[in-house]
Amino acid sequence: MDLQGDDLTEAVVASFDGSASDRYKEVTGALVRHLHAFAREVDLTEDEYFTAIDFLTRTGQISTGTRQEFVLLADVLGLSMLTVGLGNRKPPEATQSTVFGPFFVEGSPEAKLGDDIANGAPGQPCLVSGKVLNTKGEPIAGALVETWQADEDGFYDVQKDLDGPQNRAHLTTDAEGNYRFWAVKPVAYPIPDDGPVGELLRAGGRGPMRPAHIHFMVTAPGYSRLITHVFAAGDEYLDTDAVFGVKQSLIADFTEHHDDGKTYYAVNYDLVLATTEETQQ
Amino acid sequence: MDLQGDDLTEAVVASFDGSASDRYKEVTGALVRHLHAFAREVDLTEDEYFTAIDFLTRTGQISTGTRQEFVLLADVLGLSMLTVGLGNRKPPEATQSTVFGPFFVEGSPEAKLGDDIANGAPGQPCLVSGKVLNTKGEPIAGALVETWQADEDGFYDVQKDLDGPQNRAHLTTDAEGNYRFWAVKPVAYPIPDDGPVGELLRAGGRGPMRPAHIHFMVTAPGYSRLITHVFAAGDEYLDTDAVFGVKQSLIADFTEHHDDGKTYYAVNYDLVLATTEETQQ
Repeated sequence: MDLQGDDLTEAVVASFDGSASDRYKEVTGALVRHLHAFAREVDLTEDEYFTAIDFLTRTGQISTGTRQEFVLLADVLGLSMLTVGLGNRKPPEATQSTVFGPFFVEGSPEAKLGDDIANGAPGQPCLVSGKVLNTKGEPIAGALVETWQADEDGFYDVQKDLDGPQNRAHLTTDAEGNYRFWAVKPVAYPIPDDGPVGELLRAGGRGPMRPAHIHFMVTAPGYSRLITHVFAAGDEYLDTDAVFGVKQSLIADFTEHHDDGKTYYAVNYDLVLATTEETQQ
Repeated sequence: MDLQGDDLTEAVVASFDGSASDRYKEVTGALVRHLHAFAREVDLTEDEYFTAIDFLTRTGQISTGTRQEFVLLADVLGLSMLTVGLGNRKPPEATQSTVFGPFFVEGSPEAKLGDDIANGAPGQPCLVSGKVLNTKGEPIAGALVETWQADEDGFYDVQKDLDGPQNRAHLTTDAEGNYRFWAVKPVAYPIPDDGPVGELLRAGGRGPMRPAHIHFMVTAPGYSRLITHVFAAGDEYLDTDAVFGVKQSLIADFTEHHDDGKTYYAVNYDLVLATTEETQQ
């Protein structure tokens, strides 16, 4: 009893001595020490403590099956990109990873190569194609490609009141590793800022904008799962992404084409997977 | 772009340069640095990241107007007691502070001196009395005393399906600074462990028990608000309080009395307030 200062911190750390695993003890111990060091460094007031309790509570309560505000919080605090970096040490030939984001949904519709997955979403038609390859440049047949993205208004399907998915599907690469689908040309958009994370951005004098991008999650047996984006070259927010997710190697040209009086865009980007052996977890 | 390691951390810190206040910038900067240092130190995996996202989301979602799981989380991680210590530097004559806990409710019933506030709660009758004093030992008349506590089964009223409050009230000290009410003798009880915090305790090999106590929050014009407990001497959990809240000076004897064949308990404890000038925030 009468615990305070470092004695308090070490008593809390020691309370986890009987943890179910050494890893749990290690992570909780580090969490407690860093959390306490933070509170001590800023001399956290009781008002700030209660403000934080309320903020975190509301962050949980605004989350739903289709909106993940804690992912968004981790994104804007750079924790998501930091974790991506820690967990994806792979050869330079492999496509780099970036944030998962809050808008993935399990159970997307299946698409065939060449299908239009826009499903009526507003936007300019865009042909998205490329190959799934290994780090030797060889095609990976039968890879599962999940894709999702926002429409021309900057909204994902799950942010709108729709009957079915838009710009969201999964497809399987062919024997040459090809993937190919029609969607809409992505645009820069603000992350949802009508919740606690929006309050944090405004209080911090920060903007909510993300540069235009298409999400990919690619899996194939024997390879590490790739979670990444393809960003649109020339976007004005590439250097000020609200979630710090841009990598030079993930930027691709979305070229304009005209066919029979109609305008469409096309982007071609190869997604290169590292094997599980090539990936240091 | 291409941010990683310390560059990523410092870019996130710098993103708060336009904060609404210097304090916001200071707190967010320290938060980001400590959060990233934690993730780096334990080499946080993506699975652990998603486990944490899910844990925090559920911690928010199980919280209601009468259950505050994030307070409980801060309690079991020692952050609450640490903040109490940082925010309450006061003279040794003043009553020490301890955790607020998750069970305070705004708008408790008013009680008069000597009222029975148990309101039918199970337990042995207990007369709780004392004076509210300043650090010179002088009575503070008209101080507002809020009190709340668990019943003999270890439950607060808000954990049960009741029509009205039990063992919860506010009263005002008389001209000699006296407070006095009947409640039930408090017992040791487990903090709610049917939610995320319970999972954390079990994974950490920790127990949920708190030693028997009565909550007090005392306010009076010109004085710093006192949030504290009075603990029951002899309780077996005084040294292993799940929330690290016990202070020797807050332990009092609950004496047994017999009156006309009936048994009751009594505790007398003076609550000493520091003036706002005496308190270093």
